[in-house]
Amino acid sequence: MLLEHEYPVFEFNKQIIDATHEYAVAYKPNLAFYEMLGAAGYMSLEMTVTYLRENYPDLFIIADAKRGDIGNTSHMYAHAFFKTLDFDAITLSPYMGHDSISPFLEMDGKWVVLLALTSNEGSADFQQLRMEGGKQLYEEIIMTSSEWGSVNNMMYVAGATRAEAFERIRKLIPEHFLLVPGIGSQGGSLKDVSEYGMNDRCGLLVNASRSIIYADGTNKFIDAARSEAAKLQAQMQEILKNRELI
Amino acid sequence: MLLEHEYPVFEFNKQIIDATHEYAVAYKPNLAFYEMLGAAGYMSLEMTVTYLRENYPDLFIIADAKRGDIGNTSHMYAHAFFKTLDFDAITLSPYMGHDSISPFLEMDGKWVVLLALTSNEGSADFQQLRMEGGKQLYEEIIMTSSEWGSVNNMMYVAGATRAEAFERIRKLIPEHFLLVPGIGSQGGSLKDVSEYGMNDRCGLLVNASRSIIYADGTNKFIDAARSEAAKLQAQMQEILKNRELI
Repeated sequence: MLLEHEYPVFEFNKQIIDATHEYAVAYKPNLAFYEMLGAAGYMSLEMTVTYLRENYPDLFIIADAKRGDIGNTSHMYAHAFFKTLDFDAITLSPYMGHDSISPFLEMDGKWVVLLALTSNEGSADFQQLRMEGGKQLYEEIIMTSSEWGSVNNMMYVAGATRAEAFERIRKLIPEHFLLVPGIGSQGGSLKDVSEYGMNDRCGLLVNASRSIIYADGTNKFIDAARSEAAKLQAQMQEILKNRELI
Repeated sequence: MLLEHEYPVFEFNKQIIDATHEYAVAYKPNLAFYEMLGAAGYMSLEMTVTYLRENYPDLFIIADAKRGDIGNTSHMYAHAFFKTLDFDAITLSPYMGHDSISPFLEMDGKWVVLLALTSNEGSADFQQLRMEGGKQLYEEIIMTSSEWGSVNNMMYVAGATRAEAFERIRKLIPEHFLLVPGIGSQGGSLKDVSEYGMNDRCGLLVNASRSIIYADGTNKFIDAARSEAAKLQAQMQEILKNRELI
């Protein structure tokens, strides 16, 4: 059925969005899945962003792109994601430092989501190494980079698979929003993450991808996605109620 | 003139390539410049890679993309750059660790070019920080990651603006090729870089971008680019001769 459409990935996205939007506050397309399809993939991505803007203007749209380059080039990337495409936010890698990030912070109403502690195994290789002075690299990155922007244009990626680190992160940045991948397929627990990571305005943007969009491999994928999204939203609502945040 | 073409960026690239190919061993398109143009940019990039493959099959083609994501997603990126597009190599960011890099190393004949010490100001923010034990972060990254691949599928980015660091890098990885940006517009010196970074099979892939392609802003840009490329190639040849490498 999907493959009858000229842009099957867009058609898939559209059906997933229609089925899940009432349980979502944001969508986060990952660029790799579009880039592997070439120019047609790019068209699907553009159509997805436009579809969200036109039909669900209150939802926040994050480009999961993990970019980062010298300043001159980061200006081009900022243009690509915030002007050519109308994303609200983009995930960036901190490795190249301030001039690789600041071009994205210069655009009003747009957000940087900086990688701090990611949800994958490889986060142990460098992110968790100890620095001179005793901090871990991701803590050093949070401390330094939080000066580059504000709580109104910067968030941090903190993987749900490292719930024990949320306490340390909250000591460094009590007010910033944290984007939390790793719930669902990657095994992270919403309960643990909320206990250690939530602040008094929630402060968490919890992401589940594969556990929702691939919940069912048959043509019932829409119902399965809706049901998975509803389940996660209900858990989040319960937690927010228990903390009297809603 | 260029703007009369349907894909002016491809037309520009084609003219630059035709004018400079005899002085070049590799081309390194930076993805940001194509992404900011949307689907048309993607088409220009694809046409550029195809043009290089068909007309100059001996030249090496590097995607300057600085990607890096969880393993599942890095597999998609590897597909995007090594299959959908036929690049020989891609620049990657090390921040997310081994599972973000290894999918790119699984493809025969393809190369990873890992960011180590970049040429921009922001490289001081994190790359040059001291770790517990005294090494700098970029040294730690080189030591750990050089175990993931071999001298036949991994290179490192080492910016020409930090020539003094090449000695330290060569102690850690005497045999690996280094991709050296920062010559030209960013002010790095080919002489210094060669003195400290060259090994007995050269071991340096020196990159100049803006100083060549933007050498002249008028319709004489082709002659200016050819002349800048020839100048740099002559300097490199002189250095290689002095070291009896050619």
